[in-house]
Amino acid sequence: MVWYLRVVRLEVGDVVRLGILTGGGDCPGLNAVLRAVVRTAENVYGQNVIGYRHGWHGVAEGDSVELTGASTHGILASGGTILGTSRYHPDEHDDATERVLDTLARDHIGALIVVGGDGTLAAARLVSERGVCVLGIPKTIDNDVRCTDRSVGFDTAVSTATEAIDRIHTTAESHDRLMVVEVMGHRAGWLAVSAGLAGGAHVILVPERPFDIDEVAASLRHRHQRESFSIVVVAEGATPAAGTFEFAVTKGPSGDIAAGAIGERVRSELGLRTGFESRLVVLGHVQRGGAPTAADRILASRFGVAAVEAIQSGASAVMTALCGDVVQLVPLADATAGFRPVPDDLLRVADSLLR
Amino acid sequence: MVWYLRVVRLEVGDVVRLGILTGGGDCPGLNAVLRAVVRTAENVYGQNVIGYRHGWHGVAEGDSVELTGASTHGILASGGTILGTSRYHPDEHDDATERVLDTLARDHIGALIVVGGDGTLAAARLVSERGVCVLGIPKTIDNDVRCTDRSVGFDTAVSTATEAIDRIHTTAESHDRLMVVEVMGHRAGWLAVSAGLAGGAHVILVPERPFDIDEVAASLRHRHQRESFSIVVVAEGATPAAGTFEFAVTKGPSGDIAAGAIGERVRSELGLRTGFESRLVVLGHVQRGGAPTAADRILASRFGVAAVEAIQSGASAVMTALCGDVVQLVPLADATAGFRPVPDDLLRVADSLLR
Amino acid sequence: MVWYLRVVRLEVGDVVRLGILTGGGDCPGLNAVLRAVVRTAENVYGQNVIGYRHGWHGVAEGDSVELTGASTHGILASGGTILGTSRYHPDEHDDATERVLDTLARDHIGALIVVGGDGTLAAARLVSERGVCVLGIPKTIDNDVRCTDRSVGFDTAVSTATEAIDRIHTTAESHDRLMVVEVMGHRAGWLAVSAGLAGGAHVILVPERPFDIDEVAASLRHRHQRESFSIVVVAEGATPAAGTFEFAVTKGPSGDIAAGAIGERVRSELGLRTGFESRLVVLGHVQRGGAPTAADRILASRFGVAAVEAIQSGASAVMTALCGDVVQLVPLADATAGFRPVPDDLLRVADSLLR
Amino acid sequence: MVWYLRVVRLEVGDVVRLGILTGGGDCPGLNAVLRAVVRTAENVYGQNVIGYRHGWHGVAEGDSVELTGASTHGILASGGTILGTSRYHPDEHDDATERVLDTLARDHIGALIVVGGDGTLAAARLVSERGVCVLGIPKTIDNDVRCTDRSVGFDTAVSTATEAIDRIHTTAESHDRLMVVEVMGHRAGWLAVSAGLAGGAHVILVPERPFDIDEVAASLRHRHQRESFSIVVVAEGATPAAGTFEFAVTKGPSGDIAAGAIGERVRSELGLRTGFESRLVVLGHVQRGGAPTAADRILASRFGVAAVEAIQSGASAVMTALCGDVVQLVPLADATAGFRPVPDDLLRVADSLLR
Repeated sequence: MVWYLRVVRLEVGDVVRLGILTGGGDCPGLNAVLRAVVRTAENVYGQNVIGYRHGWHGVAEGDSVELTGASTHGILASGGTILGTSRYHPDEHDDATERVLDTLARDHIGALIVVGGDGTLAAARLVSERGVCVLGIPKTIDNDVRCTDRSVGFDTAVSTATEAIDRIHTTAESHDRLMVVEVMGHRAGWLAVSAGLAGGAHVILVPERPFDIDEVAASLRHRHQRESFSIVVVAEGATPAAGTFEFAVTKGPSGDIAAGAIGERVRSELGLRTGFESRLVVLGHVQRGGAPTAADRILASRFGVAAVEAIQSGASAVMTALCGDVVQLVPLADATAGFRPVPDDLLRVADSLLR
Repeated sequence: MVWYLRVVRLEVGDVVRLGILTGGGDCPGLNAVLRAVVRTAENVYGQNVIGYRHGWHGVAEGDSVELTGASTHGILASGGTILGTSRYHPDEHDDATERVLDTLARDHIGALIVVGGDGTLAAARLVSERGVCVLGIPKTIDNDVRCTDRSVGFDTAVSTATEAIDRIHTTAESHDRLMVVEVMGHRAGWLAVSAGLAGGAHVILVPERPFDIDEVAASLRHRHQRESFSIVVVAEGATPAAGTFEFAVTKGPSGDIAAGAIGERVRSELGLRTGFESRLVVLGHVQRGGAPTAADRILASRFGVAAVEAIQSGASAVMTALCGDVVQLVPLADATAGFRPVPDDLLRVADSLLR
Repeated sequence: MVWYLRVVRLEVGDVVRLGILTGGGDCPGLNAVLRAVVRTAENVYGQNVIGYRHGWHGVAEGDSVELTGASTHGILASGGTILGTSRYHPDEHDDATERVLDTLARDHIGALIVVGGDGTLAAARLVSERGVCVLGIPKTIDNDVRCTDRSVGFDTAVSTATEAIDRIHTTAESHDRLMVVEVMGHRAGWLAVSAGLAGGAHVILVPERPFDIDEVAASLRHRHQRESFSIVVVAEGATPAAGTFEFAVTKGPSGDIAAGAIGERVRSELGLRTGFESRLVVLGHVQRGGAPTAADRILASRFGVAAVEAIQSGASAVMTALCGDVVQLVPLADATAGFRPVPDDLLRVADSLLR
Repeated sequence: MVWYLRVVRLEVGDVVRLGILTGGGDCPGLNAVLRAVVRTAENVYGQNVIGYRHGWHGVAEGDSVELTGASTHGILASGGTILGTSRYHPDEHDDATERVLDTLARDHIGALIVVGGDGTLAAARLVSERGVCVLGIPKTIDNDVRCTDRSVGFDTAVSTATEAIDRIHTTAESHDRLMVVEVMGHRAGWLAVSAGLAGGAHVILVPERPFDIDEVAASLRHRHQRESFSIVVVAEGATPAAGTFEFAVTKGPSGDIAAGAIGERVRSELGLRTGFESRLVVLGHVQRGGAPTAADRILASRFGVAAVEAIQSGASAVMTALCGDVVQLVPLADATAGFRPVPDDLLRVADSLLR
């Protein structure tokens, strides 16, 4: 196994271990990744696994816990991450990268598995450039990590948001209302398009396509000639087209887009233009939580196994990716070179079915 | 069947029919009530059923639709109400009560089944005082109708809110956060207590018991000495005790309490006092929607059958009620003489388990 | 607290503890009971709790584990029981009752909480007659424990069986089939009636009312003049009326009724008499498992708190019971003096709605 | 639009319509396909859609119904198929293919969309060879249609089976039992592997890999040295390796593999070899039913839109297929030239995680 040791100075007899961290916003399926990594490392390769707490913060601070078959028992179907997570990035803190390297050397970490969205994975790339063997696993309910069809957590978030839209459907219909539903997605509309399609929404507004509020209002008035209710799904990062109405994106306490801002604005602008009774629902943090769907458990398990196998085969600076039905490895550099917007053909499917 | 005709002037050969309406906020199980009423009326007693659209508004305006076995097929498990609903009250509109009586006479309605919360049922009592045979069926996700252990829709709302709290649990724990969850309940805390207990919340704030924000903050600080996250469930009608902080209840467009107002205030006051990172989730209209739970379908079905049977046996001005495992009839006058708060013993159970 | 020490010989300074076991078939909500007992005992009364493994077997054999806030953390929503369970009854084994008393004395158990169905609770009554302070908590997916409106686990089992019938509905309708669904319930039809009502079944066969297969077939033929599919729900303990067809109840390996026996027979007899294409689904052990519904978590929590409080107030030989919306105590002797069949009025509701 | 008329003799002024049928076993998502086809045809291209009832049988017998926006309203989330389905194949009945062609000509069907598994799609290929414009859409809970990553219905079936295994987990663990769960899949183990992985099963037996019962028993005995329960998932088409035990596949009434046959045999053989207490659960038709998951609704919607668009662009004798994140068209001849087994790499993932 010497092939994957780069920064670690080993004495004879030292045991080399796998490290793992989960970073960024939490999502369902992270625990399934941890379980798969531990089981494969322990059962197939006889390796020990160290988990760092609260993402990169735990590596910088040397805050870790041993992960074993026993300590990961029964977590396959549980949401969140037993390691905790944070949005801490080593390159934003003095000396943090050095401290990361120190911790990894001290803990005899031969390879580090980094489970995160593009911020967390970008830090992984930087650390890998310092000589550490790093394997990335993409997770984000936004599904906007490049080079992979799916990220861990997305399927569950779509399922959760769809259930919510299903529920809102019955109340919209019973009360003849225009319901605006704001979902997550600050730069890509994957969740909005997917949950909107699955929930039978009538308008879907996404960051990829600035919207003309007058057109949206006209289409709703047209619809209400034969129907008495509507559902409008708005991604939190959707923005009006130039020249329609002024909207300055507000940022929340942690730099996030303020929940409900665009949703409330869309609701009131549409209410003004149509005269329909309207209500806003902001799904919020509910979208991040809960038991992962079967599809997310499977994806997480496959990624976890693939990451450990890739390390064995000498890979580094790569990320596991789903391409069709196959798990592949893609360079971390490519995966973190931007984000992945919703393609036009999926937006076109929505156009055909909405209204 | 002449026993239940009071205001209706019948010619020989006229067919007497049952009328039904659903009023107030929508909730899961209303369609199951409609189905049970129609099936029992048609199959057991050979009677036709007329549904009035959008609650009392449809009776005042003569807006109705025939309900049959065929038109109520497949709705047992669907949320909302195929009749639509509204918060229209006849006594708030000139002549509306006269028009209600006219419609019922013109439509040969021998008895009217009114499915609603206490506002809708209070109107039913007024109409019954004008000589109409009226049967009430209690429904509200607030569970605050008097004289019955359960109202249709409550069990589903508890289930929905509990699922949401379960999801929030995993994200709170992964991020070491204080999560404030605002649920419905403007004068009674049934939903907050029930979903809070079932979801394992750590603090539950209800209208029945004005809260001391300093005490809440102290209890959370105490908890965070050994745990790193907390869930606080707040009913939308919870209020601070006198002398803690000023809070004026804001009303929304339709006179409802503005969603998120107390929740956001509690979040910020607790954030200030504890320094914990905090987030707010307002469950909103999601709580009203979706497929009814098995328990709500059964309750709705039992109430629907009991209402038709009660009419046959000559009852009027009464409401179906669940008392233990038995469906009984209680006077509408008693049922609408106030509301039903959460009893102390249930609040005490919460006190024993929280923290 | 000396008031509840009966068989235990204490030295000065000994710490008295609560014991608890879960016995009989497992069901959802048992862990919620354990959590509530531990939290109330620890937080409110400062008492320690000992859990016996695998029901009465663990008491007889001295197989126990300490239950603490930490060890019961996160189990509110998990199915099954962390203590394990068994159908072991002390009175069926030589000396077992003596060994039970020895274990309780040795472990300084001041009071024993017994969570079980009527078999497990009958053993609790026997042990209580030997001077042990015993509190019962009723649990069974059959809901047939006397003196309580609900037992822990029933609501979840109804929910699970209803979901399955919902699914079967769509396949029955798409294929024009007669689907027979066998659910649990060997002597009482609570689960069959409840899930049948909630799932919109067309015929429900329960142990309380031996069925005439020719009448069932005639009613289905009548139905199929206008519809092309049917769902028949059969409790595993349903039996044909005398003179219709011979049916000897088969027992499985552990003395249970053999799964699928009556279901398959009903399917084939109905297939013969109607000529309809038919299929059988046996829900089986799926009915026992999974996360408890919100209602079961609340009931379990209330029972757990009530049991600890009852012990503090000196009660013994009683069982917690739900009577309407109130938790009460009833004598174990009454609760175990038979079982609780489905009342006629609920069967009549089903009659009104089926077909 | 003349480009897609082949067998239809049109008079000037005739309206050309789209035909659609759903064939084979029912599954969730079929209604979402119907809705997407109708919406796209009506709203985007102004075409009418005729639905044939009960698969090919309806085409052969001229049994059809007009599908409109109104008649497909609200079916996005409902299981089964409003058209009904059957396993009728035209080539197995005298003259049936001629009658199919006659019906299509008489109904002015310019193109026929065939939603089915490989049997139904093979018939579509035959009919297309007679000059009819035919578009296939793959659906099967077995996921074994060639040339597409996913078939409609599979994701929901995995989700349903996983929920069942989750439930069985808790009962297995509480009772220290070996639970054998039989799932569908007569020649491919997609459902068994996927639900087994997602449900955390300990052994998965699939048709792709005949099993050695002694090896399975040995692995379970090994596991039970540290754990007390196990879950074995068996596909209904799994078979023992030569030389282990004799097993003749039994066929049910309609030529299907008899439900429970291999499951019961595996249970008893493992029980004999290990001495563990064991139980069998046969999931059966529950796997086919229920509301489609969000993923299945999206896939069904995309396939429906793509099929109508493909017809417009002149395609025929092709099937919509999911390749990665993209919907493509593949020749029906390729798609029906066999079936698609589970690839080795997915079986290997299972091997790494099981035990």
